[in-house]
Amino acid sequence: MREHHLEKEFSFPDFRKALDFTVRLGEVAEAEGHHPDIHLAWGRVGLQIWTHKIDGLTESDFILAAKADKLY
Amino acid sequence: MREHHLEKEFSFPDFRKALDFTVRLGEVAEAEGHHPDIHLAWGRVGLQIWTHKIDGLTESDFILAAKADKLY
Repeated sequence: MREHHLEKEFSFPDFRKALDFTVRLGEVAEAEGHHPDIHLAWGRVGLQIWTHKIDGLTESDFILAAKADKLY
Repeated sequence: MREHHLEKEFSFPDFRKALDFTVRLGEVAEAEGHHPDIHLAWGRVGLQIWTHKIDGLTESDFILAAKADKLY
């Protein structure tokens, strides 16, 4: 976790499963109206969450992070 | 373009369209058996392509980059 970001990394056995997770995460982000940065690579998905408007963290960030954990 | 990566950035009007592009790009990567790093954020998709095995560029990288351009 950096000063004003939530950062997480999730591991997967291949690219396909990482891509699937990215899609489901993207759907959650759309539903929440709160959009993370997602870094998709072979076997992993990196996630950075923060609130652009204040360049810091709000409740929405923690909700999205918790939903990402649950999805995983 | 860095020394041994191909780098591109694609712009979109919203998160949804950037997510859709990521999915289609992921499908191309799977079909090619060659996987880029994809950085998805609101309204943009960043792409880094290189060949891990040689930590440099091969023909596969340029093919994937051309297919990404075509897709866009």
